[in-house]
Amino acid sequence: MKVLSDIEIAQNKKLLHIKEIAAKLGIEEDALEMYGKYKAKLPLTLIDEDKIKKNNLILVTAMTPTPAGEGKTTVSIGLTEGLNKIGKQAIVVLREPSLGPVFGIKGGAAGGGYSQVVPMEDINLHFTGDFNAVEKANNLLAALIDNNLQSSCCNLNIDSRTILWKRVIDMNDRSLRKITIGLGGVANGIPREDGFNITPASEVMAILCMATDFEDLKNRLGNILIGFTFDKKPVFARDLKAENAMAILLKDAIQPNLVQTLEENPAIIHGGPFANIAQGTNTIIATKMGLSLSNYVVTEAGFGADLGAEKFLNIKCAAANLNPKAVVLVATIRALRHHGGAKTEEINTPNLHHVKAGFCNLEKHIENIRKFNIEPVVAINTFVNDSYEEINFVINHCKSLGVQAVVSENWAKGGEGTKDLAHAVVKVVELNKSHFEPLYKWDMPIKEKIEIIAKEIYGADGVDFDKQAKLNLKRIDRLGFNDFAICMAKTQKSFSDNEFLIGRPKNFVVTVREIEIAAGAKFIIPILGQMMRMPGLPGVPASEEMKIDKNGVISGLS
Amino acid sequence: MKVLSDIEIAQNKKLLHIKEIAAKLGIEEDALEMYGKYKAKLPLTLIDEDKIKKNNLILVTAMTPTPAGEGKTTVSIGLTEGLNKIGKQAIVVLREPSLGPVFGIKGGAAGGGYSQVVPMEDINLHFTGDFNAVEKANNLLAALIDNNLQSSCCNLNIDSRTILWKRVIDMNDRSLRKITIGLGGVANGIPREDGFNITPASEVMAILCMATDFEDLKNRLGNILIGFTFDKKPVFARDLKAENAMAILLKDAIQPNLVQTLEENPAIIHGGPFANIAQGTNTIIATKMGLSLSNYVVTEAGFGADLGAEKFLNIKCAAANLNPKAVVLVATIRALRHHGGAKTEEINTPNLHHVKAGFCNLEKHIENIRKFNIEPVVAINTFVNDSYEEINFVINHCKSLGVQAVVSENWAKGGEGTKDLAHAVVKVVELNKSHFEPLYKWDMPIKEKIEIIAKEIYGADGVDFDKQAKLNLKRIDRLGFNDFAICMAKTQKSFSDNEFLIGRPKNFVVTVREIEIAAGAKFIIPILGQMMRMPGLPGVPASEEMKIDKNGVISGLS
Repeated sequence: MKVLSDIEIAQNKKLLHIKEIAAKLGIEEDALEMYGKYKAKLPLTLIDEDKIKKNNLILVTAMTPTPAGEGKTTVSIGLTEGLNKIGKQAIVVLREPSLGPVFGIKGGAAGGGYSQVVPMEDINLHFTGDFNAVEKANNLLAALIDNNLQSSCCNLNIDSRTILWKRVIDMNDRSLRKITIGLGGVANGIPREDGFNITPASEVMAILCMATDFEDLKNRLGNILIGFTFDKKPVFARDLKAENAMAILLKDAIQPNLVQTLEENPAIIHGGPFANIAQGTNTIIATKMGLSLSNYVVTEAGFGADLGAEKFLNIKCAAANLNPKAVVLVATIRALRHHGGAKTEEINTPNLHHVKAGFCNLEKHIENIRKFNIEPVVAINTFVNDSYEEINFVINHCKSLGVQAVVSENWAKGGEGTKDLAHAVVKVVELNKSHFEPLYKWDMPIKEKIEIIAKEIYGADGVDFDKQAKLNLKRIDRLGFNDFAICMAKTQKSFSDNEFLIGRPKNFVVTVREIEIAAGAKFIIPILGQMMRMPGLPGVPASEEMKIDKNGVISGLS
Repeated sequence: MKVLSDIEIAQNKKLLHIKEIAAKLGIEEDALEMYGKYKAKLPLTLIDEDKIKKNNLILVTAMTPTPAGEGKTTVSIGLTEGLNKIGKQAIVVLREPSLGPVFGIKGGAAGGGYSQVVPMEDINLHFTGDFNAVEKANNLLAALIDNNLQSSCCNLNIDSRTILWKRVIDMNDRSLRKITIGLGGVANGIPREDGFNITPASEVMAILCMATDFEDLKNRLGNILIGFTFDKKPVFARDLKAENAMAILLKDAIQPNLVQTLEENPAIIHGGPFANIAQGTNTIIATKMGLSLSNYVVTEAGFGADLGAEKFLNIKCAAANLNPKAVVLVATIRALRHHGGAKTEEINTPNLHHVKAGFCNLEKHIENIRKFNIEPVVAINTFVNDSYEEINFVINHCKSLGVQAVVSENWAKGGEGTKDLAHAVVKVVELNKSHFEPLYKWDMPIKEKIEIIAKEIYGADGVDFDKQAKLNLKRIDRLGFNDFAICMAKTQKSFSDNEFLIGRPKNFVVTVREIEIAAGAKFIIPILGQMMRMPGLPGVPASEEMKIDKNGVISGLS
């Protein structure tokens, strides 16, 4: 049997009109802002705080991933299908893909196999324009900053060497990482060093995803710290009177997008901040929208649980007063082999010894989730080369920890392959096993919050602060930003800040190199190691393999 | 009585659902791709070549404009309302606005007063994402070029000093005009000089507007000349296998957008190429769509008739085999005063002497339109400070030339103020007075085509070619591009290439400084003087005055 590509599976599906999907949620056609027949924006008036409190939020996160990722998105979609199959009303709430990976190495982010959200082409391309709106709002602020440097009439005395705000473009384009701008004489601005980030790394994206309503969005945009004057005073976006125009550019982007899964269940896809230097999860508004419309809301957060779940719980849930009822930890036998010492070329070969040795990684994630007073369920996202012995070892070992581990065949079978997982999740929810508590209070001192995360979640012995980081802490204190949340920027490949320490590293300290401020998003970003904000294209970009015929049918998009 | 702002007038209008507008054109709801309730994309299958031949295309152009513009867009919209009022089925087909002017000085481009297309906020902001799609397609090609410079596996040996392709951003951002990219070491690309243009200046925009169908679009994208190898061979986008991925990004953007006028008549808004270095008019597909759906199609082209109409007729109509039945020449008393020698501070003061002296400018435009075997109608777009004597002089003088000049009160009265103009246009059409012929054949030599335009349209005695232009001509010949159309890049402020020569200059030659190639658009661009491709923001940007309240109601957008 020919194995179909993701896009072939998606194209073979006859989609329901989006008004029919909306009808399943009790939404009238007139309330929708349709974008073609299969996408719609949902008005914020549908958000209902009472229902948010009553309905059940499920986070899908993962063990420490291999570079290919362990399948959080497909498990999230598959689990939603499975929940609906066993009679629960469930919706999946996901991030929007960036165009960079679509044309680069990684591909899109609409799931895969028989667990996809559709129309996958649209979702992976411009979708409803949200990324573009973020990009334009970000770049308007950048243009206003450089215009102010040039301006004689309303000059804010900004020291161009201190400017923190970069332009963004939703493209893998390494040549824009470090540039000089404003060259060519007096008409062309003030020369200075600069650079572009990829759009999901914009603080505007982080803000859109933290905003609770339109006023909050506007206020946060005004609060963006863009740099300092020559006399060292902070300059904010509001000093450039930028926040209204930026909010105008985001007036549609703030509304969540409704699409469907391959099994015709509703899906909300909204926002897409980077998981390294930002929170890596969809908008608060989208999650609240899901909870206003459906009994079960399945959502995910980027990278492993030490990053994605930690930020989801301590930042997003704490800020929005969300109360997750269960956490699904995605594990793969492949990743367990990796953490048990399998070399790259051995990673797809059954090896019980490696799996046993790698289990410590999953075990630490299980312990971590329980520190939030939430009960985890382990989803084993299976591949064809997983052995019975390996899978059984994981199930039994989880059982010994009191955790249910369930095989999830979401990729090959969709909802039919995730019914067991769905039952396990429902059990945790219905037995009321979780009573979520964040790990820290936002009003603790910055250093203390960072240390709690490092010790409790990463298992570090302590935290070293580099000279630059110490200076940054002083600046944060001077600016009065001590009560911001902590958005850790660390490698996703290890619990530690050293990507080569696999498994469950012990006896290590992490080093905070510097600390950035996202004053609009209201978080502090401790940087542990080098963070990529502008990827490059590979030697043979994915774009070369893409085709579109005269009827508009696309192939080679993944 | 309080004079309402454009946005207040637009917001006071209760819009019809776009499906009702479509129904007026006989389009079923199911054929529409809706973008909210008031915008829709139209499928290309609605294009009907038989109807295109039978229906009537009217071009609205203008005398040589003052910096404020003489109101082609408002006259186009108003005329469409007027035609419908006198019982003709008419649609207006316009360009899409760029975000740059919206936040800069000029404001949006959705008409004004009581001649507007709505929803004006959406049209002036992201609209249906077409500009973003053009930007992404343009910038994907740019990223692929720099990636190829960096690549070891498929290196095309491109000489980075010869790269013609620039990135674009839809923002007035002077600091990006001249930049250096690829700095910071081996991981960050090859350092080189570069710059950003504003999105409407992208050749991708020109191509989108010249394409007749999706295959044509893809072929044209592949034909883009991006630079040369070290051994001086041309490199095209197809050498980077870029055209399919670029076309994929444009799959929705190729469909024209349907909106409505304040008087609930249909309007198509699609594409927006610069009027200086590109053709400055909407897409061929949109114009053909209009002609497939309506008896009368009113459209416009940027700047005065020496640029807009000349390019519209010689490039667009010739390429698409369109047959315009009448040309409306917009004149203002203000512009006539200007061309008659009124100083800037005198321009709004009645002065018959100035108007008489400036009439020569309008007269030359009238003569020019007749060179295409098309009968012009003059629309006098009136302002409150125009005197009866001035207006009467223009009407009578036009009459002496055999041309009907009609007062158009489109701004203050909408269709009610343009009924006379509509009658005048219908008369020209129904008496079958026009038998369009382009001014040159595309297969003539490049130099000859340029000379025909300069002599016949500008009234020049001849054309000087600078050394660089002569080298460019040799390159064009070597590349085999002699049969491309000519897309003149000249100041809009004068018939000549010297913006200070107002009125009807005589005894001058124009100088072609250099000649660019738009191989995908299939035109050659002779550059006469300096052309702006990236505007800057003013000292007080328009964005500062914009407000949006918590209900999403915008003010200060114009």
